[in-house]
Order: sequence, then structure tokens, then C-alpha cells
Amino acid sequence: MEFEVIFLPEGKRSRVPANATLMSAALKGEVDLAAICGGKGYCGKCMVEVIDGKVSPLTDHERKRIPKEKLDKNYRLACQAHVEGNVTIRVPDQSRVGKQRLVIMGKEPPIQIRSNVEKVYLELVPPSLEDPTADDERLLTELAVKGYPNLVIDSPTARDLPRVLRDAGWKITAVILGRKEVIAIEKGDTRARKYGLAVDIGTTKLAVFIVDLNDGTIVYADGTMNPQIKFGEDVISRINYASQGKAHLEEIRGTIVEGINSLLKSGVSEVEIGMEEVYEAVLVGNTAMHHLFAGIDVKSLGLAPYAAGVGRSCDNKARDMGLEINSSGNVHLLPNVAGFVGADAIADMLASRLHEKERLTLLMDVGTNTEVMLGDKNCIWACSTASGPAFEGAHIKCGMRAASGAIEKVWIGNDLSVSYKTIDDKRARGICGSGMIDAVAEMLKAGVIDTSGRIQQVGGSIRDGEGGREFVLVPKEETETGKEDIVITQDDVRELQKAKAAIYAGFMTLVRKGGLDRGSLSEIIIAGAFGNYIDPKNARIIGMIPELPLERISFTGNTAGSGARLCLKSLDVRLEAQTVASRIKYIELAAQPIFEEEYINAMYMPNSRLEDFPETMREVKAPRVVRRYVRR
Amino acid sequence: MEFEVIFLPEGKRSRVPANATLMSAALKGEVDLAAICGGKGYCGKCMVEVIDGKVSPLTDHERKRIPKEKLDKNYRLACQAHVEGNVTIRVPDQSRVGKQRLVIMGKEPPIQIRSNVEKVYLELVPPSLEDPTADDERLLTELAVKGYPNLVIDSPTARDLPRVLRDAGWKITAVILGRKEVIAIEKGDTRARKYGLAVDIGTTKLAVFIVDLNDGTIVYADGTMNPQIKFGEDVISRINYASQGKAHLEEIRGTIVEGINSLLKSGVSEVEIGMEEVYEAVLVGNTAMHHLFAGIDVKSLGLAPYAAGVGRSCDNKARDMGLEINSSGNVHLLPNVAGFVGADAIADMLASRLHEKERLTLLMDVGTNTEVMLGDKNCIWACSTASGPAFEGAHIKCGMRAASGAIEKVWIGNDLSVSYKTIDDKRARGICGSGMIDAVAEMLKAGVIDTSGRIQQVGGSIRDGEGGREFVLVPKEETETGKEDIVITQDDVRELQKAKAAIYAGFMTLVRKGGLDRGSLSEIIIAGAFGNYIDPKNARIIGMIPELPLERISFTGNTAGSGARLCLKSLDVRLEAQTVASRIKYIELAAQPIFEEEYINAMYMPNSRLEDFPETMREVKAPRVVRRYVRR
Repeated sequence: MEFEVIFLPEGKRSRVPANATLMSAALKGEVDLAAICGGKGYCGKCMVEVIDGKVSPLTDHERKRIPKEKLDKNYRLACQAHVEGNVTIRVPDQSRVGKQRLVIMGKEPPIQIRSNVEKVYLELVPPSLEDPTADDERLLTELAVKGYPNLVIDSPTARDLPRVLRDAGWKITAVILGRKEVIAIEKGDTRARKYGLAVDIGTTKLAVFIVDLNDGTIVYADGTMNPQIKFGEDVISRINYASQGKAHLEEIRGTIVEGINSLLKSGVSEVEIGMEEVYEAVLVGNTAMHHLFAGIDVKSLGLAPYAAGVGRSCDNKARDMGLEINSSGNVHLLPNVAGFVGADAIADMLASRLHEKERLTLLMDVGTNTEVMLGDKNCIWACSTASGPAFEGAHIKCGMRAASGAIEKVWIGNDLSVSYKTIDDKRARGICGSGMIDAVAEMLKAGVIDTSGRIQQVGGSIRDGEGGREFVLVPKEETETGKEDIVITQDDVRELQKAKAAIYAGFMTLVRKGGLDRGSLSEIIIAGAFGNYIDPKNARIIGMIPELPLERISFTGNTAGSGARLCLKSLDVRLEAQTVASRIKYIELAAQPIFEEEYINAMYMPNSRLEDFPETMREVKAPRVVRRYVRR
Repeated sequence: MEFEVIFLPEGKRSRVPANATLMSAALKGEVDLAAICGGKGYCGKCMVEVIDGKVSPLTDHERKRIPKEKLDKNYRLACQAHVEGNVTIRVPDQSRVGKQRLVIMGKEPPIQIRSNVEKVYLELVPPSLEDPTADDERLLTELAVKGYPNLVIDSPTARDLPRVLRDAGWKITAVILGRKEVIAIEKGDTRARKYGLAVDIGTTKLAVFIVDLNDGTIVYADGTMNPQIKFGEDVISRINYASQGKAHLEEIRGTIVEGINSLLKSGVSEVEIGMEEVYEAVLVGNTAMHHLFAGIDVKSLGLAPYAAGVGRSCDNKARDMGLEINSSGNVHLLPNVAGFVGADAIADMLASRLHEKERLTLLMDVGTNTEVMLGDKNCIWACSTASGPAFEGAHIKCGMRAASGAIEKVWIGNDLSVSYKTIDDKRARGICGSGMIDAVAEMLKAGVIDTSGRIQQVGGSIRDGEGGREFVLVPKEETETGKEDIVITQDDVRELQKAKAAIYAGFMTLVRKGGLDRGSLSEIIIAGAFGNYIDPKNARIIGMIPELPLERISFTGNTAGSGARLCLKSLDVRLEAQTVASRIKYIELAAQPIFEEEYINAMYMPNSRLEDFPETMREVKAPRVVRRYVRR
């Protein structure tokens, strides 16, 4: 039996079997609905109002996550409520992912182009009764003369060879991949047209770049949300989904491939090139994104010891990957370092030239998982910390992604008066990651919280809410809905502390395991789309990063994308990727007591080892607390 | 609008659009119906009786091909008559292809096995938190230790790698292709199971062999008609069909791929192996069959200068070819020499060891096209002659394929009394190729025809028929139908003369172009499924082959298949194929006046140069004629 679910206000409809969740109906009907925890009932972000029709009884998760007044109004979690008849629901704005601000560009050092794709123009002598040499022999002999010996012809190209040669009057351009294989024969001289695709598959965002392989210019760049978000916003949710069987893996893989193809199609159409003129793609992503794109079984990525299925770089035919560039084209995936330090980290290092630094440099790519890399030209130590979704607005009461109306900057005066800035200067809807860092840092500076993160005495903007103490950032009158204050709760502060502590503890674990001198740290590079909007001073105040003069801290944006482009443009950089990968010493934090210890130190703000943050401590009014956090 | 066509007596039904031919209805309904000329109305073999319903008016082709009494009974050519309403037709036995006797085995020299596929058994150390090395790295490092460095893993295998390694408890067998690529990972020790597929795609027949790559034994062999026959029995008809567009090419390609897959499926099921345990396939066929299998554009094969699209050997992924062996497996195609001397000729040479002969040897693969190769260990001359479909029973009034009831042996006494033998000793239905050679040779010996092939004075078994003089071989009382005498007409004799003249002239052209000494010819090897049933003495009498003592003439059967198996079993032979291909001097007969001259000489039986056939002439009673044939 099937039922119909109608989604208001857009009026989309979707038919699902009896007992399907409202979430699956939304997925099927392509209704924008947040699913941060992947449908487990933990995040409470998929709240919807049931207007009409019969759904299953309330679950414990719902009783816990939905405020009483909303429960009374028949609000439900879409992932928990099952349809038991035709249903009409309303999806409130707060439960939508919305169009996000995506940073897709990143710093990229200049490079000498040496593409894997070469084009050779030839004018061949046609066959005759005296010389009926086969077409392939005629072509390959001439290419050998031009300096390309021992080539083979990829089968789809061989299939069309006789027709193309004759249609072109034997004046053709051969497209050669890796000096090994002829992947296309084109009519006339097409040497001026040669394109590649660089892709950064982030857990949250997907960025594609179409690059002119002749001169290296980016002819098109675009980004979108990673469409796999519907399978859960974090990596583990998606690994769990994909681990349920081959069909699930294929489904989640198909989603990202389709997402890339869709961006590619818009791109080639806008810049007026053919899909078949894109001859190579280089992709990066964290190990899970890499595996999910390539269709590699990810079950073991979710279980200790978290070994990657594929660590080496690999090359595949575009047609085998489903990528709609030239079907004979190459899809290159950069190497993965470990289960949670992937090809995107390698790309970050290549773009940041970490492996060439004379002095000790800290590179981190901040996201739901933050890759922390510490090293110089001799050696690089790396780890990955689960910094959690707090920076993405999840697990934060009024948290949201960096979309229109999100509070991204916060200032708190000595009188606890709050100033803030929202994205697009719209009325405030919630607070995003950079706003949270600002808010907590400012609360710390203003003494609203102590160094253990505890919100201080009630009064003024500080009050006791349903779930504990909270600080009112924006009164409801100033918000978009006008119905609820935007607050920072005690739990929200804890979430941010955990996130920043994980990052800093990752750094400290590398310092200690590597036997490095913390004092010799010379530079901090913060990569990641998110990083661009962080106030470095506030990041330093909360102790998310070690204390260095601000001029030694740089934000480089999406350098994973930059690294992908570098490898697309230069075989030398691609080779370098191998070298870098082999030079990395990976530390699995799950096996490190040092990490636990440093994590607890870093739960304080900036840290329980105050001697490491002398400058910061001069700015902070907050009461100092010791020994609030103990090792579990 | 669609109409239904019912085929009697089997009662099969097929729905086709208005105006479709009865032939296309038969194709769609999978009704066995001969289509020797490919639906052009030339061969008249697709005659059917229209029992009921409306079809289009008679065409000129039909008036010419259908005897008057059958026209009166509403017989039509299925390729000419279009449906104009629901139709019921009867398909007479004579219009069916029937189950043919297929020779698929051929001589094969012994060989040292050196397969392209290797299996290595490994027991790997599982990953741990201390050593979370990626699965691929773990595998490839160990394989490098075992002597297989620098391998890559094919993408479908990489996808399943984590799961398979864990399911297998890290005890696995790696399947390695060409010492380059891991194409499968199997649980446990599977080294004893390693199979390959050898395929000979003949224009008429398709033969497959499943070979144990460990010991070289043939574990399964089977043959069937080439299912492409429905697109025309000769190569040119199929080239024409495939040249009509990409969809046509794909259709005809799909037909042969499906045919091979179908034989493969029966085979693996019978010998209880998995399709995925067949890791490599080696295919041979003439250039057109090669191209049609690989999907290579064949238009230029049908036009002077008949250049092949692909001449070099090539390797493709099974999944790209649609062949249902292991999807990561390799499909190897032997090199083609020229447009009409293909990979099957190379295979013949390899199996016959022509390139190792100390003395001049003539190798021919007799079929609709006969490849003629003449050479020794130093040099090989080769050409292809259009010997035509006479040997297949086409263009012969009572001709038929070598199926049950076909006359395959004929003896004519001095009193012109006829003895004959039919296949399966059934009542005679018609005469097949070897029967035709016998009949004409015996008619020549008995003086029924003169050396120009003209049937002599009327009387006894010789009479004037509708289409000229004819010799009655079997009176109707002895035939299966009991309705019509089986005769050899004047035109039939001419068809056979043309066929044998083409072969002999090919041989002589090679002799003369190569500056070879005809007298030094030491051996004749006749390959081809058909060859096995030819009486060598009679072939010599009609002058189809040069006169050599019978003990120096051998029949080797389907050596194209043997050559394919050799290349499957041994990389050394595969390498040899390249050497042989490069050593061949190809002569395009279309450009050779010498061929025209020799063709006219060879129209006489045995030849107008009687001095080349001294022994034969002692046996022949026929009146000697000179200068009946002149150069056109």
C-alpha cells in the first residue's frame, strides 16, 4: 500500500509505501529538509508540522528533541514519524538546508604546466591499392615519428577511427593520454581546445573547476552542496548508510557522480565547450568521500583500525566512473594518507607547499573533521580530529549553516551589549560557525563565561532557560521569525569547546609524538571553506589554534580544490603528491592517550596550560577555573 | 499501425509495423529463415507461402526468382513482400537454414603454456591501530615482494577489496593480468581454477573453446551458426548493413557478442565454472568479423582500397566489449593483415607453423572468402579471393548448407550411373559444397562436361531444363520431398568453376608476384571447417589446388580456432603473431592484372595450362576445349 505526502508551502507531493518515514518521503519528493544526523533522531533539525493525516506515535527521540509547545502543535521529527495514511505536512524554514554560502576558491601557487593530455596535429597520407595499410597502423606510425612511440588506441576511439579519418580528409588531431594511449581523434587542428576538470568533494560542499589545460586558466568554477547530504551530514552517517549493502553504496555513489556531472554540464554549456573536450578529471576528497565516489566498500572505514581501502593514487577510465567527461578520458584520484586523512589533505599540502617549508608549519583544514598537519620540508606529521558539526551549526540550539541570515560576526561590549552581523545583512535566523567562535570568544573576554566555559551568574542577558543557562544574543523582536530569542546555551558553549579542543589536541599530539618543539612553530595556515570567515584573533582566544602573531596566521580557503587543479595541470605536482604521501607520518588519535590528555587541557579556554597563551590571557576577563574536566 | 504475422507450421507469431517485410517479421519472431543475400532479393532462398492475409504486390525480383507454379500458389520472397494486414505464412523446409554440421576443431601443435593470467596466493597481515596501512598498499607491497612490482588494481576489484580481504580472513588469491594489473581478488587459494576463452568468429560459424589456463586442456568446445547470418550470409552484405549507421553497427555487433555470451554461458554451466573465472578471451575472425565484433566502423572495408580500420593486435577490457567473462578480464584480438586477410589467417599460420616451414608451403582457409597464403620461414605472401558462396550451397539450384540430408559425396560411373552419400544418411534434400566438388569432378572424369565446364550432348541423365542443360543427380522419387529431381545445372557448374578459379588464381598470383618457383611447392594445407570434407583428389581434378601427391595435401580443420587457443595459452605465440603479421607481404588482387589472367586460365578444368596438371589429365575423359573464356 502507498500513501501520498504533501509538503507545504511548496505543495510538492511524493508517494511512499505505508510505514515509510516522512524523511524518506521528503527525499523522494526532493523537498529541502535538513538531515544532519542522517535520520537517527539525534539532531532534531528535521522538525515538521503535521497539518493533516495519520502518522505513527511519538518516539522517545521526539519527546526529547521537540519543545513542549511544538509537541502540542503536532510538530514531529521527519526521520521518526512514519506515514499511516495520506499526510499533509509543513516544512518550517528552520528545518531547511537552504542555499548556502559556499567558498570554493583557494590559494594556488603558480605552476609550470605539464598536462597528462597532449594533442598532436597530423596530416596523413590516405590508403591506396598500392598501400592499403590499416588505419591504426598509419596513424600510430606517424605518431611514433612525432615522438610518441608505442601508443595504443582506446576502443571507443578505434571504433570511429575509419570514419573520422575519412570525414576529416586525413587531417586530424590525436589526443594522447599519458604518452600511452590515443583517447580521441578529432577533425582538423583542435590543439587550442584542451580542458580538464578539477573536483573537490567536501563532506558538505562540492566544488568543480574547468581548467584550460593549454594555459592553466580556470574557465569555470562552481560549487553546490554535496548532494549526499540527504544520507546524513557527517561522514559516519554516510559510511553507515553505504555499509548496508552494495545497492546502498551504489546509490550514494550515484548521487555524487550525478552531482558532479550536473555541475560539469552547466559549466561546459556556459563556456561553450563540449563534454568530450574535457579529457581528464582530478578529484580530491577525504578518504570517505574518495571511496564513496569511487564506489569502494567503506564498511571498514567506520571500524577500528579505520584502514583505507585504497591509499595509492589511481587512474580510471571516465566511463568506468560514470563521469561524463570524454568517455575515454582519465579520472585521477590523489592518494589517501589514512582512513581519516584523505586526498584532500594531500591537496592542501601541495597547494600550501607544506612539504617545502623551511620552518615548522601548522596546516589545518577545518571542517566536520579537521585534518591537522604539522611539518616542514623534512617530515610531515598528520592526524584527523572529529571536530564535530558545531562549526556547521549542528548540535547548537540556534545553530545553522552559513546561509542568508546567519550571524557570522559577534561583538560583546563590557556592558554585555551585543553587536552582530548576519550573512547578506538579513534579519537574524540563527548563528553559524564563525559566529559561534566570535560569540564564545567575546563571552570569554567579557566574563560571561569562565575559562572552563561555564556561563556565569544570572542577570541581564544571562538567564536560566529550559535546558540550563543561556546568553541571549538576539532578542526575538530582531529575528526573522520574531518568535524566539537567539541564544547561546551552556550546551552550545560545550559543543564549541569540544570542537576546538579536538583540533588543538590534535596539534599537540603531533607535537609530542613527533618530538617537535612547539616554540619553533613559525606559521599557521588555515584551509577549508569555513576558515575564510573565522576571526583569527578569536580562534586564538578560545585556544582553537596555538598562539602566534596574527601576521603569521593565514587563511587560504579551499586549497583542496587548488591542489586538485595543480595536479590536473602538472604531472610534476602529481608525482610530488606521491612523494608527499610517502613522507607523511600518520598518527591515529584513537590509539593515543596523549590525545586524551591534551583534549582535556584544551577543553579550557584557551587551555589549562595557560603558559602557552600569554598574550591571550591579558585580554581575557573570564574567571579562571582549574580541574573542571577530568579524563574519562 | 502494427500487424501480426503467424509462421506455420511452428505457429510462432510476431508483430511488426505496417509495410515491414515478412523477413523482418521472421527475424523479430526468431523464425529460422534463410537470408543468404541479406534481403536483396537475389538469392531466392527465403521463399515462403502466403496462406492468408494481404501483402504488397510482386516485385521484379520475385517474378525472376520464383518458379511459375509456385507463383501461382502464392509463394513469395520474404525479403520482398511487405505486410499490409495480418498475415499467415508457411515456411517450407527448403527455406530454412536448419541445424548445420559444424566443424569447430582443428589441428593444434603442442605448446609450452605461458598465460597472460597469473594467480598468486597470499596470506596478509591484517591492519591494526599501530599499522593502519591502506588495503591496496598492503596487498601491492606483498605482491611486489612475490615478484610482481608496480601493479595497479582495476577499479571493480578495488571497489570490493576491503570486503573481500576481510571476508577471506586476509587469505586470498590475487589474479594478475599481464604482470600489470590486479583484476580479481578471490577468497582462499584458487590457483587451481584459471580459465580462458578462445573464439573463432567465422562468417558462417561461430566456435568457442573454454581452456584451462593451468594445463592447456580444452574443457569445453561448442559451435553454432554465426547469428549475424540474419543480416546476410556474405561479408559484403553485413558490411553494407553495418555501414547504414551507428545503430546498425551496434545491432550487428550486439548480435555476435550475444552469440558468444550465449555459448559461453552454456559452457561454464556445463563444466561448472563461474563466468568470472574466465579471465581472458582471445578472438580471431576475418577482418570484417573482427571489426563487427569490436564495433569498428566497416564502411571503408567495403570500398577500394579496402583498408582495415585496425590492423594491430589489441587488448580491451571485457566490460568494454560486452563479453561476459570476468568484467576486468582482457579481450585480445589478433592482428589483421589487410581488409580481407584477417586475424583468422594469422591464426591459421600460427597453428600450421607456416612461418617455420623449411620449404614452400601453400596454406588456404577455404570459405566464402578464401585466404591464400604461400611461403616458408623467410617470407609469406598472402591474398584473399572471393571464392563466393558456392561452397556453402548458395547460387546453386539445389544447393544447401552441410546440413542433414545434404549430398556430400558423389560417384559417377562410366555408364553415368550416380552413387551418392548424404549427411546423416537421410533422404537427399540438396547438395552441399563437398558434394558439388565431387559431382563436377566426377562429371568431368565421366565426360558429362568438357574441360570448359560445358555440359555435353543431351541423353540419359542429361536434359534441357528451364534454365539450360542440367545433369540429374537424384531423381525426385529418391528425394526427401519426392517432388523435384536434384540436378546440377550448367549455371551450377559455372558457379563452382568461378569459385575454384578464384582460389587457384590467387595461388598463382602469389607465385608470380613473389617470383616463386611453382615447382618447389612442397606441401598444401587446407584449413577451414569445410575443408575436412573435401575429397583432395577431386579438388585436384577440378584444379582448385595445384597438383601435388596426395600425401603432401593435408586437411587441418578449423585452425583459426587452434591459433586462437595457442595465443590464449602462450604469450610467446601471441608475440609470434606480431612477427608473422609483420612478415606477410599482402597482395591486393583487385589491383592485379596477373590475377585476371590466371583466373581465366583456371576457369578451365583443371586449367588451360594443362602442363601443370599432368597426372590429372590422365584420368579425365572430358573433351578438351581451349579459349572459351576471355578476359573481360
